[in-house]
Amino acid sequence: MSADPNCIFCKIVAGQIPALRVFEDDGTLAFLDIGPLAEGHMLVVPKEHYARVEDMPPDRMAALARHFPRFVRAVTRVTSAEGCNLLLNNERVAGQEVPHVHWHVIPRSAADGLGFRWKPTKYATGRGEVVQQLVKDALL
Amino acid sequence: MSADPNCIFCKIVAGQIPALRVFEDDGTLAFLDIGPLAEGHMLVVPKEHYARVEDMPPDRMAALARHFPRFVRAVTRVTSAEGCNLLLNNERVAGQEVPHVHWHVIPRSAADGLGFRWKPTKYATGRGEVVQQLVKDALL
Repeated sequence: MSADPNCIFCKIVAGQIPALRVFEDDGTLAFLDIGPLAEGHMLVVPKEHYARVEDMPPDRMAALARHFPRFVRAVTRVTSAEGCNLLLNNERVAGQEVPHVHWHVIPRSAADGLGFRWKPTKYATGRGEVVQQLVKDALL
Repeated sequence: MSADPNCIFCKIVAGQIPALRVFEDDGTLAFLDIGPLAEGHMLVVPKEHYARVEDMPPDRMAALARHFPRFVRAVTRVTSAEGCNLLLNNERVAGQEVPHVHWHVIPRSAADGLGFRWKPTKYATGRGEVVQQLVKDALL
């Protein structure tokens, strides 16, 4: 399994740095965020080092994500949260502070002041169809 | 495959409402958000109706999430984004507006004014360990 010797999450995976671990299996580790946005805020990481989402093999992403229903159920129950966000920040500009893929599970409650800044726009006439075709082509 | 006759995303899946579809396979549909936070903002949904994450069978979540590396690669390239967020809002309090599980793929660029509101806290001494044990027990 590949690790980056300078990566803090690789060190947590290896047990070289302590963490409040809550779950692990062959490929995935979950632990509490040390600076939680809410009690129970969890991080879910692949044990192997992948800096960005697009570096991950599809099977690894699938193996990690299959735990989400269970994690969400457990964390919202335990914290009496009314909901939660699953969030992944990919690249520094998106808020990624540690360059090792990690999912945030963030319990939510009314008036907690959290959430994504939502500033919806509209496509100019015809522009949506252009973007649609570009994305479709890129996915071929 | 189960559908909710009153669900807008089920109607999109069924082709009863138009959408800027960019990808589909047996279980997953991706289309452009009609009120995008940034050009290329995509929604990724299970074709079957599941209102909340915890309603989804692990295999369905895994089958959907395996596309994320590819989707992120395609959308960031096409939009020349510098990064992206993957976001799921679970329950109304977390920002879920349509009660059919959907992932947002949000292209990001510097100074776009987006991102999650980040207000980190700290656990009081010993509290992190208490929460850790509660979550671990809930995951047994």
